[in-house]
Amino acid sequence: MTRALTVSIDAMGGDAGPSIVVSALIKTVQRHRDVNFILHGDEAQLAKLLTRQPKLKGRVAIRHAPARVSMEDKPSHVLRRGRDTSMWHTIDCVKQGEANVAVSAGNTGALMAVSMFGLGIIEGVSRPAIATIWPTLKGQTVVLDVGANVSATDEQLVDFAVMGEAFAHVILGLARPTVGILNVGSEEQKGNDGVKSAASILRNSNLPMAFHGFVEGDDIAKGTVDVVVTDGFTGNIALKTAEGTARLVGAYLRLALKRSLLSRLGAAMASSSLNALRRKLDPRAANGGIFLGLNGVVVKSHGGADAVGFASAVDMAIDMARVDINARITADRSAITAECAGARASEL
Amino acid sequence: MTRALTVSIDAMGGDAGPSIVVSALIKTVQRHRDVNFILHGDEAQLAKLLTRQPKLKGRVAIRHAPARVSMEDKPSHVLRRGRDTSMWHTIDCVKQGEANVAVSAGNTGALMAVSMFGLGIIEGVSRPAIATIWPTLKGQTVVLDVGANVSATDEQLVDFAVMGEAFAHVILGLARPTVGILNVGSEEQKGNDGVKSAASILRNSNLPMAFHGFVEGDDIAKGTVDVVVTDGFTGNIALKTAEGTARLVGAYLRLALKRSLLSRLGAAMASSSLNALRRKLDPRAANGGIFLGLNGVVVKSHGGADAVGFASAVDMAIDMARVDINARITADRSAITAECAGARASEL
Repeated sequence: MTRALTVSIDAMGGDAGPSIVVSALIKTVQRHRDVNFILHGDEAQLAKLLTRQPKLKGRVAIRHAPARVSMEDKPSHVLRRGRDTSMWHTIDCVKQGEANVAVSAGNTGALMAVSMFGLGIIEGVSRPAIATIWPTLKGQTVVLDVGANVSATDEQLVDFAVMGEAFAHVILGLARPTVGILNVGSEEQKGNDGVKSAASILRNSNLPMAFHGFVEGDDIAKGTVDVVVTDGFTGNIALKTAEGTARLVGAYLRLALKRSLLSRLGAAMASSSLNALRRKLDPRAANGGIFLGLNGVVVKSHGGADAVGFASAVDMAIDMARVDINARITADRSAITAECAGARASEL
Repeated sequence: MTRALTVSIDAMGGDAGPSIVVSALIKTVQRHRDVNFILHGDEAQLAKLLTRQPKLKGRVAIRHAPARVSMEDKPSHVLRRGRDTSMWHTIDCVKQGEANVAVSAGNTGALMAVSMFGLGIIEGVSRPAIATIWPTLKGQTVVLDVGANVSATDEQLVDFAVMGEAFAHVILGLARPTVGILNVGSEEQKGNDGVKSAASILRNSNLPMAFHGFVEGDDIAKGTVDVVVTDGFTGNIALKTAEGTARLVGAYLRLALKRSLLSRLGAAMASSSLNALRRKLDPRAANGGIFLGLNGVVVKSHGGADAVGFASAVDMAIDMARVDINARITADRSAITAECAGARASEL
């Protein structure tokens, strides 16, 4: 049994404009019959796009927002002067209780700032994080933080572990997700003070978490653990390095297959398999970034997402709205706070 | 005109043992007729391997070392108790002036510790770094630090920029290498204090360096700049994430090509091109790590290197011995120190 939901969407966020949002919804409304949508953006433009779509009639409402956030706008600028933007309206709609979740393909930094300002951070959690789902040899792994913060203390890394584990458990349905902290080696004595201290807190905690210890960069794609925890600086660089590497290997492959007549023929014969591979590696197919640690669900679609990519971000937001991930985060976070306080008291 | 050189080699360092070192030298002695080699390790084992190799006669000397450093040994342990290891002898041979450069496929942390202890750091440089050469869409890019340090201050990042630029200029022969600092965005206001301060020092310096500003993770494989500067924590994780991603894409490709009879036939026809691609992506073909900032040249071969990989590490060491990269590093480092002192004085 599912309850009726409303998704608040920033229709002006992505590079390609509102038309891909409308195309995405045509797929989504059929998959989710009990979900309605509110689109924020230029009313005239949106109304024109919707008139041609009978399937969306009665399921999609339009709310006019006169301005939009650009990819170049600084988060601080948007916080000061962005109240009439489609992004601000999208988050405010969740804040006011009119919608259950928000989706935007806009400027990540601005979206995080507006979301933090509008929705607030879960009590006890020090900083929100952006999680992403990474394809691996074994299936998929949650990696966080991939860019909400430019650094992280040991306590913040512990928060990220708690949030990532809750996400993998509640949303991906893993009974007992394994969690690792990203480091330069897997031995206990390796790394900087922050990761060593975070690992020590998690190792000694009584959380219902399968803490694996440290993992290295190549463990992400191997799927060594279900959740990889890191600071937003390292995580963002690892994510973009992986995207760059996948593109480089793809370019090498195309060059290699053009080298001889025989390999060109072979590539033509294998073209349907190679095209399937290309789609699998296409970052547009990924869900983008999931904001964790806020009093509300916000999903960031990839800025360059097409209709398929945007629809998968909306699917993720709907999945998250159906369950209560924040209850588990709050409980685990309180347990850790109590344990740390207990440990400090026993040292006195 | 080239001068006669001697390369000091840790014959016991790699996972595969001394036989791949001897196989590597059979190739190397023919490429470099004016270079001699000293192998450190188990005398009986090495003598047996050499008797069967007439090409190495008179070119390769054996020095007995009773012990070896394992991949699990902590650097501090090796510093205290490792004086009879092949790794220690290899570095000591350069320190004593008997050899010009050192090559080892052993434990990276221990090799850096022994090298720092034995050879010392270039005056004015705060910390050495490990550089690696990364394949890109445009050719190759030097990335450092990929693991000598678990963090880096702004001044250390500046040192890495100076050393990486000198390497790209002197060793790779680039007239005016471009240098970027790895960050979570390319705009000036992005990132943590360390990278912002380092960028500001380099932007305002009068070094003969083409400083590009910030680059992101995907810029490495794009080849946006010739030298990418980062701390050893982030650099190590980026490098291993890229290796993991390349392996993942390779695994996906193999699976995709097995999907149908047609694609299997196509793959068979394109097999010579696909095998060439596999060799190109094989990390064993890379030179491993180049230690910069020491009073001496040390090259770390990949621990799992085969004879081809080890030979390419030896080639890199010989290239570095033929030129004086440290003279440029010392000059650039002094210029920066003077500029920073001048800037501080003018603020008083």
